[in-house]
Amino acid sequence: MEEVKITEQKILEEKIFELIEGKKFGLLKELLSEMNPVDLAPIFEEVTEKDLPVIFRILPKELAAEVFVEMETDMQQLLIEAFSDRELREVIDELFMDDTVDIIEEMPASVTKRILKQTDAATRRMINQLLAYPEDSAGSIMTTEYIDLKKDMTVDDAFDRIRKIGFDTETIYACYVTDRSRRLLGIVSIKDLLLNAKECVIRDIMEENIIYVNTHDEQEYVANQFEKYDLLALPVVDKENRLIGIVTVDDAIDVMQEEATEDIEKMAAILPSEKTYLKTGVFETFKARIPWLLFLMISATFTGAIISTFESQLTSFAALIAFIPMLMGTGGNSGSQSSVTVIRALSLGDIEFKDILRVIWKELRVSVLCGLVLGIVNFIKLYLIDYMWLNNFDKNVFISEMFTVCLTLVLVVIAAKLVGCVLPILAKSMGLDPAVMASPLVTTIIDALSLVIYFVIAGILVI
Amino acid sequence: MEEVKITEQKILEEKIFELIEGKKFGLLKELLSEMNPVDLAPIFEEVTEKDLPVIFRILPKELAAEVFVEMETDMQQLLIEAFSDRELREVIDELFMDDTVDIIEEMPASVTKRILKQTDAATRRMINQLLAYPEDSAGSIMTTEYIDLKKDMTVDDAFDRIRKIGFDTETIYACYVTDRSRRLLGIVSIKDLLLNAKECVIRDIMEENIIYVNTHDEQEYVANQFEKYDLLALPVVDKENRLIGIVTVDDAIDVMQEEATEDIEKMAAILPSEKTYLKTGVFETFKARIPWLLFLMISATFTGAIISTFESQLTSFAALIAFIPMLMGTGGNSGSQSSVTVIRALSLGDIEFKDILRVIWKELRVSVLCGLVLGIVNFIKLYLIDYMWLNNFDKNVFISEMFTVCLTLVLVVIAAKLVGCVLPILAKSMGLDPAVMASPLVTTIIDALSLVIYFVIAGILVI
Repeated sequence: MEEVKITEQKILEEKIFELIEGKKFGLLKELLSEMNPVDLAPIFEEVTEKDLPVIFRILPKELAAEVFVEMETDMQQLLIEAFSDRELREVIDELFMDDTVDIIEEMPASVTKRILKQTDAATRRMINQLLAYPEDSAGSIMTTEYIDLKKDMTVDDAFDRIRKIGFDTETIYACYVTDRSRRLLGIVSIKDLLLNAKECVIRDIMEENIIYVNTHDEQEYVANQFEKYDLLALPVVDKENRLIGIVTVDDAIDVMQEEATEDIEKMAAILPSEKTYLKTGVFETFKARIPWLLFLMISATFTGAIISTFESQLTSFAALIAFIPMLMGTGGNSGSQSSVTVIRALSLGDIEFKDILRVIWKELRVSVLCGLVLGIVNFIKLYLIDYMWLNNFDKNVFISEMFTVCLTLVLVVIAAKLVGCVLPILAKSMGLDPAVMASPLVTTIIDALSLVIYFVIAGILVI
Repeated sequence: MEEVKITEQKILEEKIFELIEGKKFGLLKELLSEMNPVDLAPIFEEVTEKDLPVIFRILPKELAAEVFVEMETDMQQLLIEAFSDRELREVIDELFMDDTVDIIEEMPASVTKRILKQTDAATRRMINQLLAYPEDSAGSIMTTEYIDLKKDMTVDDAFDRIRKIGFDTETIYACYVTDRSRRLLGIVSIKDLLLNAKECVIRDIMEENIIYVNTHDEQEYVANQFEKYDLLALPVVDKENRLIGIVTVDDAIDVMQEEATEDIEKMAAILPSEKTYLKTGVFETFKARIPWLLFLMISATFTGAIISTFESQLTSFAALIAFIPMLMGTGGNSGSQSSVTVIRALSLGDIEFKDILRVIWKELRVSVLCGLVLGIVNFIKLYLIDYMWLNNFDKNVFISEMFTVCLTLVLVVIAAKLVGCVLPILAKSMGLDPAVMASPLVTTIIDALSLVIYFVIAGILVI
């Protein structure tokens, strides 16, 4: 199925380029008009700069606007620059407010100016208002086109209003009932309207127990509401409870995927980017990765310094050196298991700061279990493989060396899991990003901790 | 806003428990009936086993079923056991097919049997068919209640059909046009129906260019279609192109979040679990974490063995030991940056096997940039801090030792990034899980590789 679709797409692509080359615009229009804008956008990006505006003009207006939204910023700019003022206005008229704002945000000042010139005063005011909301807030992802009803309308009136303005709204499936000062009173779904008699008054069928968000709520919180309550759209109100816009589920899905990708990137010590992998340039990728690599490399000076401090003792007990990578590695893995789990639970809203003691108590028990099992297995492995088989140990000290390694292992696992679970929660409570506290930073702290524990125990038991 | 809601929820919770204790069931019913099932479920889970069935019976039937779906498996089982046959049948009648199947999958055989006994023959056949689809396939997450239309119907006929069966379908916003053998011909949205005249025939307004999936497509692919095409529902067809069911966007969202969590867990060397963090028991968490910890600990034997092999040389150049953690750490971080980025891109469908050369070429250039910057910065740091300030180096060999460390660093970063980007893609192409190839496993390979590179270069330049 997946394979079949990709091939279909390839065949269509080849056909389209054939028609472009042969200048068979009639046939081309017929073919393009049947296609999905999402599938058309990547094909259009392969068209030469010269042909693109020509092909674009062939499309029916609505489809043209839909394809335009799906294209990359640089291609959008290229098209805008090729458009006449009238063409530009026609495309903008077809766009939803949130898409217009997204496009404007990415454009250079001169292009933005030209776009704003093609909109009427009311739209321009609205665009400027939307541009002012903080990045990653509900206000920045909402759209302002929705169906508003009054509570005295009948179901029939409501349908009339939907038929009148429904063409220009992003969703018609939820309608919002507001009073004269635009305060949100209730929600009616199309399902409610269809399944009630025509004479019913909206007041009697609207749902008054509304789930809504504030313009300044974080987009991650907004997306979590969609998941929690299985919503298709979510109203956004200002401080006075006035309805300002709605967020639709497709935008919430984009936020979810972006936030998950961002968390994953931060966990892997990468500065988050918004583009997809293949669309990000080499230098951009380099810039996203080098800061953490540098920071972590420099901070590894500490682990080096700790080893140097114990150098003289180490050289007389060289067997202990060989276990450093295993101890640091196991500590790092144990710690990032905890930190990553806690970070994801924080993102999904499963745990909050008030749960910190429950989390610590749980991780403590898990870490004792993990530590003991690892310690015992390692003891057996050391005895059978390193002592009996490979003869890595000095006969006189092998018991104390083995105990040093295994005891360190148990303590390192426990310390690592506690550090790993506490740091992200503390970071969040201090307004920092918990994901930054994930694997790499936690690992660096645990590396240093592991070495200190190791050398202290070695100092007591062996040296 | 977020804070306010949590407090509201707490107050309601206290009020509910007060009413339960005072046995004021009239007031309780009024309060509960206004609440959202998603918010009710966690409150119900705090109610004592004795009170729960009593409180549950107070709820209106539809709300009761909705709360039931939201509850944890053990509480559902407790309720089913407390229900009379009639009560059980009433709850099941209200459930959508996909929720019924989800519940049955989690229940012990005796409970499953009792549930199936309360359903009619057709429903039972359908349940058994749905249970047979492979886990994580489109078939396993779809529901079978949808609005089906015929192509000769008018818009008015369509509305009649929606009014007739719309109560029992999960979504009415997309209607599916099928022929006599249930083959899918087209889709009509409620918007299309509302914005067209009553006499229009469905054939003329339906969209024939349909996005659909097959019953056996993977749920991750299904979820990606929702994101790509901004869908609210997606039809699922069998091999003969017959419409079997639909997947709704709320279930697609759950799949997205689950898949992201699963990827994150695998990247952190944790076996994926389906429960939220605080709901997973200590022993379950332990079982999810210990296998990888054990495997990685044992596999660190290799790095230990490599160090042991070079032990005699190391003791004479002890300064080199102190850089092992930094080199292994930087290698590990560089590698997991690449592997994690590639894994996420594979999950989102941004890259495929055919892109492997593009990925390698990109990572090669990024890694050379990263390696050079890290190498140069490290050289300066070594000279200023370790040589001039701390006097860690022997004056006679410091130049060659510094070159050894920095050259190793450059090569390790390049090797790490290449291993990190290639392994996940190869894993996927061999039908293995790319996420398992992430940080921990890649790191172990890179650890060993780093040491070998280090000691070989040291052997040439220093020893």
